[in-house]
Amino acid sequence: MSLPTVNRQVRLAQRPRGLPGPECWRLVDDAMPSCPAGGLLVQVMALSLDPAMRGWMNEGKSYIPPVAIDEVMRAGGIGRVVASQHADFAVGDVVTGGPGVQEYWAVAPDQVKRSGLAKIDLRLATPAQWLNVLGMPGMTAYFGLLEVGRPQAGETVVVSGAAGAVGQTVGQLAKIKGCRVVGIAGGPDKCRWVVDELGFDACIDYKAPAPQGAASGSSPEGARRWDAVREGLKQHAPDGVDVYFDNVGGEILDTVLTRLRRGARIAICGAISQYNASEGMTGPRHYMSLLVNRARMEGFVVFDYAARYGEAIREMAGYLRAGRMKSREDVVKGGVAAFPDALPMLFTGANFGKLVLHVSD
Amino acid sequence: MSLPTVNRQVRLAQRPRGLPGPECWRLVDDAMPSCPAGGLLVQVMALSLDPAMRGWMNEGKSYIPPVAIDEVMRAGGIGRVVASQHADFAVGDVVTGGPGVQEYWAVAPDQVKRSGLAKIDLRLATPAQWLNVLGMPGMTAYFGLLEVGRPQAGETVVVSGAAGAVGQTVGQLAKIKGCRVVGIAGGPDKCRWVVDELGFDACIDYKAPAPQGAASGSSPEGARRWDAVREGLKQHAPDGVDVYFDNVGGEILDTVLTRLRRGARIAICGAISQYNASEGMTGPRHYMSLLVNRARMEGFVVFDYAARYGEAIREMAGYLRAGRMKSREDVVKGGVAAFPDALPMLFTGANFGKLVLHVSD
Repeated sequence: MSLPTVNRQVRLAQRPRGLPGPECWRLVDDAMPSCPAGGLLVQVMALSLDPAMRGWMNEGKSYIPPVAIDEVMRAGGIGRVVASQHADFAVGDVVTGGPGVQEYWAVAPDQVKRSGLAKIDLRLATPAQWLNVLGMPGMTAYFGLLEVGRPQAGETVVVSGAAGAVGQTVGQLAKIKGCRVVGIAGGPDKCRWVVDELGFDACIDYKAPAPQGAASGSSPEGARRWDAVREGLKQHAPDGVDVYFDNVGGEILDTVLTRLRRGARIAICGAISQYNASEGMTGPRHYMSLLVNRARMEGFVVFDYAARYGEAIREMAGYLRAGRMKSREDVVKGGVAAFPDALPMLFTGANFGKLVLHVSD
Repeated sequence: MSLPTVNRQVRLAQRPRGLPGPECWRLVDDAMPSCPAGGLLVQVMALSLDPAMRGWMNEGKSYIPPVAIDEVMRAGGIGRVVASQHADFAVGDVVTGGPGVQEYWAVAPDQVKRSGLAKIDLRLATPAQWLNVLGMPGMTAYFGLLEVGRPQAGETVVVSGAAGAVGQTVGQLAKIKGCRVVGIAGGPDKCRWVVDELGFDACIDYKAPAPQGAASGSSPEGARRWDAVREGLKQHAPDGVDVYFDNVGGEILDTVLTRLRRGARIAICGAISQYNASEGMTGPRHYMSLLVNRARMEGFVVFDYAARYGEAIREMAGYLRAGRMKSREDVVKGGVAAFPDALPMLFTGANFGKLVLHVSD
């Protein structure tokens, strides 16, 4: 087959303050790479757009180093092998890995293992599902819920960002494990989908106006906006929350803290409401509820469970095949050039389901 | 013996806003109670003054009900049995329990067990020590450190309020368990005592001016005040903090969060810096460090371990006897009438060691 002469890439041009705008990116037509000796050349099919990307754009120490200025933006994705000098991969194999936001990915032999590159079976799931339930969001949901949240059958699990990539799988897994599941999502469409299609027991629309007659909140300002969450929790989790899987942080975390049950576990997965706050994060004012309720709040990083991804993929592929788990992806067309406009959708809540950027068929 | 005709009491007159002032209390000369049928009459010798008292004065749900208006203020203490119709107690026995802020405590038979009333052995420790290392602060230190913090030999343990009732025992226990221990306390005298007398490896004076050349803090305002803590942690816990036992909350908690080691545990024991903040608590801005460092923050309430106090008392009395553990109490004279002026010392840091109110010899 004949390959193009350029490899279109999105590189980090400058670090953002607040929501990352177009000024953060530089679209580059790089020279087409050749297949590295002993390695692979992969044509990118689809890229995973994740809230964690916002953190990777910041300078400073975190769980992985930041993306450097002028480096290709880091991204997980799916691609097809178009050239191979590696014994384990043949032309035509479909692989998952970390290609970054570019059309072609040249993988040196020593990178194959380090980058977590692995063949995937498109009979088990679609490429978009391989970036969702069977990809990083699914792994995050699986290990965060089961290893950090440790839900027991009969307990009440609350998950924010319920219609998002991680949240949808957290809620469905918790249902499968016998829990009562309450989602928190933005807008009636997402809430309806989560209950009617995914089988959550209830979903609280955090954008809804507070119900009539609701008690006014205890926070000093802007409290009324969160009364819908407070009242929703009172209604749908009347005995309190045993496990809270937090994707959003901010006021929603603070409100759930006031409704913990004794011995509750909060799995800290993300804080998407706070990532673009240029004046810095807001901490959970009600964290002393952890003391009153003998509860714990614990963070985790999905990469720590990499050795166990296979086990999680097998279990979740079984649920998909059996129709016990559904997935929804929001696929943006337009190739890598569409990346700068697509990423902010995650932070405004414009996406509905796992956000995927389509790069090639 | 002849008993007085009045029983002096301190009752809650109104709920405080901020630091509890004299307006919160009413000194009452109540009628002297007689010994309840089948019960006990106890003359109070010493009362324990604890930060938790501030929480008991607030209205609303917590781990125990609030003290009601016009009720005798709740307090733990030590007393001597002056009349007994109970088979397990004789006149002259010294007991520990929850007499409240009053001179005489009439204990009905059904209250004996419920109030945790128990004989104590003054050969094991002084009455003040029975309110400190062998009392609630010591139990809090023991179970909070060992069950929530779970320190391993060789790890670095940081404790705030290091010269306070709980902090002094936390640090000494952590040393006994083979840890490196860094205290945080207010003022050079407390810091010196903690290192020179108690054997902590280091102590950071949070009231000290920031060291010369220290990097300015990342918090938007008042940051410089906490640079001493940040720089102290860099110096004395250069590889990060494995266990943080938090008695104070606020900016110190936030600063320690930035210095966690992977897998760190934060035991939330109290938040004394925040109890009098009438505008509400400030949450830990840097809580996402829990995610980056796969760390957890967990609350506990000492009463949950009541069934195991005996085990802790035996172990710690052994350390006292062997000279492996020291204790310091700050005993205020003046009887129950001195209570309103003594309690605020806890919140201004005016006490040095466990604050005890002497009521009778």
